[in-house]
Amino acid sequence: MVRAAVMPAPGEPIRVMEFEEPRLEEGSILLRTIYAEVCGTDVHLWHGRLEGVPYPIIPGHVNVGEVERVKGVVTDVNGKEIKQGEVVTFFDVHETCQNCWFCLVAKAATRCPHRRVYGITYSANEGLLGGWSEKIYLKPGVKVIKLPAGISPEELIGGGCGLPTSFHAVERASIKMGDTVVVQGSGPVGLSACIFAQLRGAYRVILIGAPELRLKAGLNRGVDVSINIEKVGIEERIERVKELTEGRGADVVIEASGNSQAVMEGLRMVRDYGTYVVVGQYTDTGDITVNPHGDINRRHLNLLGCWGFEFTHLYRAIKLMERFHHRYRWHEFISRKYPLKEANRALQDVEELKVIKAVLKPAK
Amino acid sequence: MVRAAVMPAPGEPIRVMEFEEPRLEEGSILLRTIYAEVCGTDVHLWHGRLEGVPYPIIPGHVNVGEVERVKGVVTDVNGKEIKQGEVVTFFDVHETCQNCWFCLVAKAATRCPHRRVYGITYSANEGLLGGWSEKIYLKPGVKVIKLPAGISPEELIGGGCGLPTSFHAVERASIKMGDTVVVQGSGPVGLSACIFAQLRGAYRVILIGAPELRLKAGLNRGVDVSINIEKVGIEERIERVKELTEGRGADVVIEASGNSQAVMEGLRMVRDYGTYVVVGQYTDTGDITVNPHGDINRRHLNLLGCWGFEFTHLYRAIKLMERFHHRYRWHEFISRKYPLKEANRALQDVEELKVIKAVLKPAK
Amino acid sequence: MVRAAVMPAPGEPIRVMEFEEPRLEEGSILLRTIYAEVCGTDVHLWHGRLEGVPYPIIPGHVNVGEVERVKGVVTDVNGKEIKQGEVVTFFDVHETCQNCWFCLVAKAATRCPHRRVYGITYSANEGLLGGWSEKIYLKPGVKVIKLPAGISPEELIGGGCGLPTSFHAVERASIKMGDTVVVQGSGPVGLSACIFAQLRGAYRVILIGAPELRLKAGLNRGVDVSINIEKVGIEERIERVKELTEGRGADVVIEASGNSQAVMEGLRMVRDYGTYVVVGQYTDTGDITVNPHGDINRRHLNLLGCWGFEFTHLYRAIKLMERFHHRYRWHEFISRKYPLKEANRALQDVEELKVIKAVLKPAK
Amino acid sequence: MVRAAVMPAPGEPIRVMEFEEPRLEEGSILLRTIYAEVCGTDVHLWHGRLEGVPYPIIPGHVNVGEVERVKGVVTDVNGKEIKQGEVVTFFDVHETCQNCWFCLVAKAATRCPHRRVYGITYSANEGLLGGWSEKIYLKPGVKVIKLPAGISPEELIGGGCGLPTSFHAVERASIKMGDTVVVQGSGPVGLSACIFAQLRGAYRVILIGAPELRLKAGLNRGVDVSINIEKVGIEERIERVKELTEGRGADVVIEASGNSQAVMEGLRMVRDYGTYVVVGQYTDTGDITVNPHGDINRRHLNLLGCWGFEFTHLYRAIKLMERFHHRYRWHEFISRKYPLKEANRALQDVEELKVIKAVLKPAK
Repeated sequence: MVRAAVMPAPGEPIRVMEFEEPRLEEGSILLRTIYAEVCGTDVHLWHGRLEGVPYPIIPGHVNVGEVERVKGVVTDVNGKEIKQGEVVTFFDVHETCQNCWFCLVAKAATRCPHRRVYGITYSANEGLLGGWSEKIYLKPGVKVIKLPAGISPEELIGGGCGLPTSFHAVERASIKMGDTVVVQGSGPVGLSACIFAQLRGAYRVILIGAPELRLKAGLNRGVDVSINIEKVGIEERIERVKELTEGRGADVVIEASGNSQAVMEGLRMVRDYGTYVVVGQYTDTGDITVNPHGDINRRHLNLLGCWGFEFTHLYRAIKLMERFHHRYRWHEFISRKYPLKEANRALQDVEELKVIKAVLKPAK
Repeated sequence: MVRAAVMPAPGEPIRVMEFEEPRLEEGSILLRTIYAEVCGTDVHLWHGRLEGVPYPIIPGHVNVGEVERVKGVVTDVNGKEIKQGEVVTFFDVHETCQNCWFCLVAKAATRCPHRRVYGITYSANEGLLGGWSEKIYLKPGVKVIKLPAGISPEELIGGGCGLPTSFHAVERASIKMGDTVVVQGSGPVGLSACIFAQLRGAYRVILIGAPELRLKAGLNRGVDVSINIEKVGIEERIERVKELTEGRGADVVIEASGNSQAVMEGLRMVRDYGTYVVVGQYTDTGDITVNPHGDINRRHLNLLGCWGFEFTHLYRAIKLMERFHHRYRWHEFISRKYPLKEANRALQDVEELKVIKAVLKPAK
Repeated sequence: MVRAAVMPAPGEPIRVMEFEEPRLEEGSILLRTIYAEVCGTDVHLWHGRLEGVPYPIIPGHVNVGEVERVKGVVTDVNGKEIKQGEVVTFFDVHETCQNCWFCLVAKAATRCPHRRVYGITYSANEGLLGGWSEKIYLKPGVKVIKLPAGISPEELIGGGCGLPTSFHAVERASIKMGDTVVVQGSGPVGLSACIFAQLRGAYRVILIGAPELRLKAGLNRGVDVSINIEKVGIEERIERVKELTEGRGADVVIEASGNSQAVMEGLRMVRDYGTYVVVGQYTDTGDITVNPHGDINRRHLNLLGCWGFEFTHLYRAIKLMERFHHRYRWHEFISRKYPLKEANRALQDVEELKVIKAVLKPAK
Repeated sequence: MVRAAVMPAPGEPIRVMEFEEPRLEEGSILLRTIYAEVCGTDVHLWHGRLEGVPYPIIPGHVNVGEVERVKGVVTDVNGKEIKQGEVVTFFDVHETCQNCWFCLVAKAATRCPHRRVYGITYSANEGLLGGWSEKIYLKPGVKVIKLPAGISPEELIGGGCGLPTSFHAVERASIKMGDTVVVQGSGPVGLSACIFAQLRGAYRVILIGAPELRLKAGLNRGVDVSINIEKVGIEERIERVKELTEGRGADVVIEASGNSQAVMEGLRMVRDYGTYVVVGQYTDTGDITVNPHGDINRRHLNLLGCWGFEFTHLYRAIKLMERFHHRYRWHEFISRKYPLKEANRALQDVEELKVIKAVLKPAK
C-alpha cells in the first residue's frame, strides 16, 4: 500500500490515507517521492480559493523522486531513456492538448482549457496524481527531466515551483542589460526572480519584502539593496527606489508578493516606458484603483500579466540551476522538512511565513 | 502683420491678435498656413487640463502650409532641399534633446524632459509657434515633410494628429496577421486606428463608438462590425465581441475613447494572452477599478500605454497615406472648415462631437 | 477501389493505381479529394532532390476535399465537430511530437525530427496519405480546417502551399508599416508574399520575376512595381530598386525564387539595417559567394532563413483569405486543372513555368 | 604644446608631433589623457583597410582622461555637471545628425552618413580629435560619461572598445536564458562577449580561439569550455560543439574573430533555428562560400550582422562593469602600457597578438 496526504475539502484537516499501488499503463512511470513541495498555492487550495478543484485531492505539484518502475520505454526530450533508479522531476502541467486554438494558433499553452495539473486538477479518486504521497504515478506523456549531475534533490525542491514561475516572469520582463530591477515579494518566487534577474542582465536588483530572514537570503544571493516592508512605509519605499534610479524609477518591476495592494505601489516604482510584470496574483486578493491616464497612458507603460509556465521554462531554469547552483544555493531555501503526517503543520508554517520553503519527505 | 488666434488662459475666449512677421534665423522657415487642426487636445488646453502650459498660447500642433520663405538651406530627412512654394507639414514635437538619458539610453524620446511642442508648450510671447495663425515660424531643426505627390492639404489635415497617434498605437499593439482587433472610440484617433489595423494584418476590425455618422465613416473604410454605444449597453457590447471571436475575446483591443471607464470595458473584451493598448487617455478622466488577479495575472495580459509619437511614426504614416489615400479618403473626415475668427466655435463643435475633424483655414 | 497517382521513384513516370478503401481508425476521416495541388516541391520530389523520401509515394500535400466519412467525433481547433459533407482542408505536417527538444524547449516544431508530411514522407504502401488520389485518409490527430463560408475550393487550392509558406516568410520579415518590400520570384509563393506584405504594412511592393503573365498577376493584386528578369539585367534590377528607395535599398527583401543566385542579387537590394528572408531555397540549387564584411557585418543585416510553416500560419492565412479573397482572387492563380491520369503533364507544366498553379481534380 | 602620436599615412611610421593647445568653444572640454586604447581597428587604419580616412590622423577612439578644463556648463545624460578634475570617458561616435532618414526613420544611428568618429574620421589637421595624444579636445555635444565610483581608469580602458562592441553583439543575439553560446575569437571583443553572454542568460559559454593565454583569460572569467584553434582542427571543433549540445549545435554563435573563414565554420556550429551574430568582420578579409539551402533556409537560421554601437550600449556596458568588475577584472586584459613614442611598437604587438590589450599612456 502507498501512503498519501489527502486534502479532503477546503478547510478540512489533511489526512494520511492508504492507496493501492497502481498498475502501470504502457509509457507510464512509478516514482518514489523523495521530496514534495508545500507552496503558497497549496495554502490557497486549502482555503478553497481556486476554482474547479475536484476535492479530495493529493496536493503537491513539484516533486523530486526516484524512478521505481517504468512500463515500456520512456524518453526525455533529448531522447534519453528514463531508467529505474534515476532521480528525476517532472512537469506538473499535463495534457495540454496541442489540438486547440490556444495551443496551436495562439501558442499559449498555459491557457489550454484541457490542461491538467498534478496536485491541483486531479482528484485523489483518480489515482496517485499529486506529490504528497510516497509514490506518484506519472501518466504516459508526462514530461520527465533527469536531475543534472551535481544537482541534489534538495537543490531542485529548494527551487520548487518558484523556480520556473519566476523564470517565466523574468523572461517576460525582457530586462535589458544594465537595467535596475525591483522585485516585490521575498518568498520563493521573489527570491528566484532576484536570481534570474541577475542572470538575465540586471545591473542592480532591489528586493522589497519581509521578514528580515528572507531579505537576508536575497542579499546573500547578489541582491544589491533590500527594503523591509515591516520597517519602511510605502511612500518611503517608493522614494528609496527613485533615489537609486536618478529619480526615474526602476526599468523593470516584478510583482511576486501575492498582495494586490503591492500592484498599486509597484506602479509608482516603474519608470516611464518601463515594464511591470505581475506574477504574484495567483488568487484574487482584492481590487485596486488605477488611473489610466497617469499610470498607463502617459507613462507609456508595459504592464504584463504572467500566468503559470511552460515546459521550456522549467527545462531552462534547471539548466541555469545546473550551472549556477554553487552561487545561488537553492537548497538553503528549505527551512524545514516534514513527514507526511505533519502536512497540516507544514501548510500552517507556509501560511504564517515561518519558513521560506517547506518540503514533505514522504518516504519512510 | 500676421493674424493668429490666441488662447489667453484656460476658459477665456480665443481672440484673434496681430503679430509682427518674424525675422528668420539661419535654418528657419516661414510657413503660410493652409490648414490648422483643431483637435481634442485643444479642448483639453482650453479647459486647462494639461500641466505647465505657458498661456497665452497660439494653439495648433498639426498643420499644412506653403513655404513662404527659407533662410539658408533646409533639407528634409532624405536630404532634399525644402523650397519656397512647396506644400509641407512638420513634426510638432521639437527639440528632443538627444542628450539626455531618455533620448539616448532608454531611446524613449517622447519622454525627453526637454521636448517642446508647437501649439502646446510655447507661449504666444515667444513667437508664431502654433498653427492657428496665418503664418508659422519653423525654428531651425524643426523636421519638415513635403506632402507626397498626389496628397492634398485636405487629406493630410484630415488625418491630423490622429494619424501618427493611431499609427503608434497600432505599431505598439503588435497585431499578428489574422488577428481580430477591437477599436474603442470613433474619433479621429479611433478611425485611423481602424485603418492602420487593416494595413497591419487584422482579419477583422470591430469599431465601438458613436455617433452613427462616425461609425459609418469607419464602415466605409473597411471596418467589419460597428457597435453604437448609444444603442447597445456595456454587457451586450462585451457579449457581441465574444460572439465574434469564438467566445474568447479579441486578440487586440485599442482604446481611443478618451473615457477612463472604457478601459474597464475593454479589459473584458481582450482574450487571454491578448494585448490591450491604451492610447486615448491623454488627460485624467478618472480612476478605474482593476483586479490584478482576474484582469492581469491569470489573463497573461499585455496592457500597454502609448504616449505621443516620434518622427518615424509621422513619416511612415504619411507614406501609407500616400499609398492608400484613395482607399481611405482621410479628407472626408473634415466636417467643417472655420476661419480664424471662428476658433471658439470650432473648439465647441469638437467638444460636442458635432464634427469628426474641424480645421481652421487661416489664410484670407 | 480508390484511384491514386503514384510516383514510383525519382525520374519514373507517375502511374495511376488502384487502392483499397481504407478502414477507419477511431478519430480518422476519409476525405473525397476535390482538388490536389501540384507544386514545385512535387517537381523536386520527382527529380529526387529531397532526402529520405520513401518512394513509391502518392504526392500532394495541400488539398481540399469533402468529408466522406468520420469515425467517431473529430473537432477542429475551435472545438467544432467535423461533419460528413463538409468541405475542408488539412495541415499536411503531421505528428510533430510535442515531446522532443525542438517541439518543447526551442518551440521550433518545423524542425521536429518526428514530423511526417502528407504527400512527402509517407510511402504509398502506408496508405492513402497523399493528395493525388480520389480519397485521402486523414489519420487521427491530423488538423482539419473547415473552409470559411464564402471560400470556394478553387480559392483555397489556388493559394495552395504557397499561401502558408509566404505567410510564414512575411511574418518572419517583421515588416514595419511604411516599409518598401521587394519580392524575388513570381511563383505561387512570391505572389502570395506580395499579397501578405501588403496586408502586413508595406508601403510599396516591388515584384521581380518572370514571365510577364505572373508579373501581371502581381500588378493586378496591388504590386506597385514589377521587374521582368527576362528583360532587365541584374545590375539594372538592383539600380531600379535603389532608385525607388532614395538610393538606400529596400527595407525588406523576400527571396522566393528557388534560385540560389538570386540570393546574391537580393543581398545587394536590401538597405543597411534591413531584413532579408530566404524562403525559396527548398532544395539545393548551388553555393553562392558572400562577403561577411561587406554583405553582413557592415550592413548590420538581418538574414533570416524560413523553413516550412506551422499550423498557426495556415490557420491565420486562411483567415486573411476569408476576409480578402475578393480583393486578391487566389482562384485565378489556377492556370489549368488536370485529371489524375495527366499528373505527368501537370508536373511538366509546373517545371516549365507554363502555369502559375496546376491542380489535379481526381474525382470522376 | 601638446604631444600627440600621428599616423601620417597607411604604412608610414607613427610620429610624435607637437600641437598647440586648443582654444575651447562654448560647451567643449579639454581632457588630459590618462589612457588611450590601441585596438585592432588601429592596425587596420595603419594598413589603410578603411575607406575615407583623412590621413594624417591622431588615432585612438576609446580613452580615459581627467577633465582639465570645461568651457561653460557641460552635463552628462543624467544632467550632472562635468567638472574639472573628474575622470571620464566619452562616446567616440560624434555628430550623428538626428536629422536624417537613418537617425530618425530607421532609428539606425550607426549608419548615419554624417557620423564622425574620434581617432578615425578626423584629420590631425582638424585638431586634437584622437586619443593618442596628451590632451583630447571634446567638441561641444560629445557625450561624456563619468567613471563610476570604484572603477579605475585601468578597468575602463581594459574593456576598451571591445566592451560596447561585444555588448551590442550580445544584445543582438537575443540569448534566451539557458542557451549555449559559442564565441569565436578570444581577443578583447570575444572575451567581453563571453562575459556579457553570461550576464545575459547563457547556461554555457564555449570560447574558441588562441593563444592559450587568451583562452585562460576566458576560463578565469566563467567560460565553461575553451577550444584552442592552434591545437584542434576545424572538423574536430565543430564536433566538440555538437557533443556539448546533444548533437544539435549551439543556440547562439557570436563571431568575433576577424577572419572570414570563421564564418563558414561558425555556420556549422549553430543549431537549426539558432542565431549567428557576425561582429568580427570590421574589414574585408575575403569572401566565403555559403549554401542558401543548407546553411540558411532549411536551418531557419538567424544570421545577423552587428555594426558599431550606440551610446546606450556604452552606457549600459559601463553600468555592468560597475557592478561586476570584481568578478571580471577587465584591467587584467591590459598586457602592457606604452608611452606615446612607442606607438609603433604597440601597434605591432597588437597585430602579432602578443598582447590582449595594449594601451598608450601619453602623460609625462
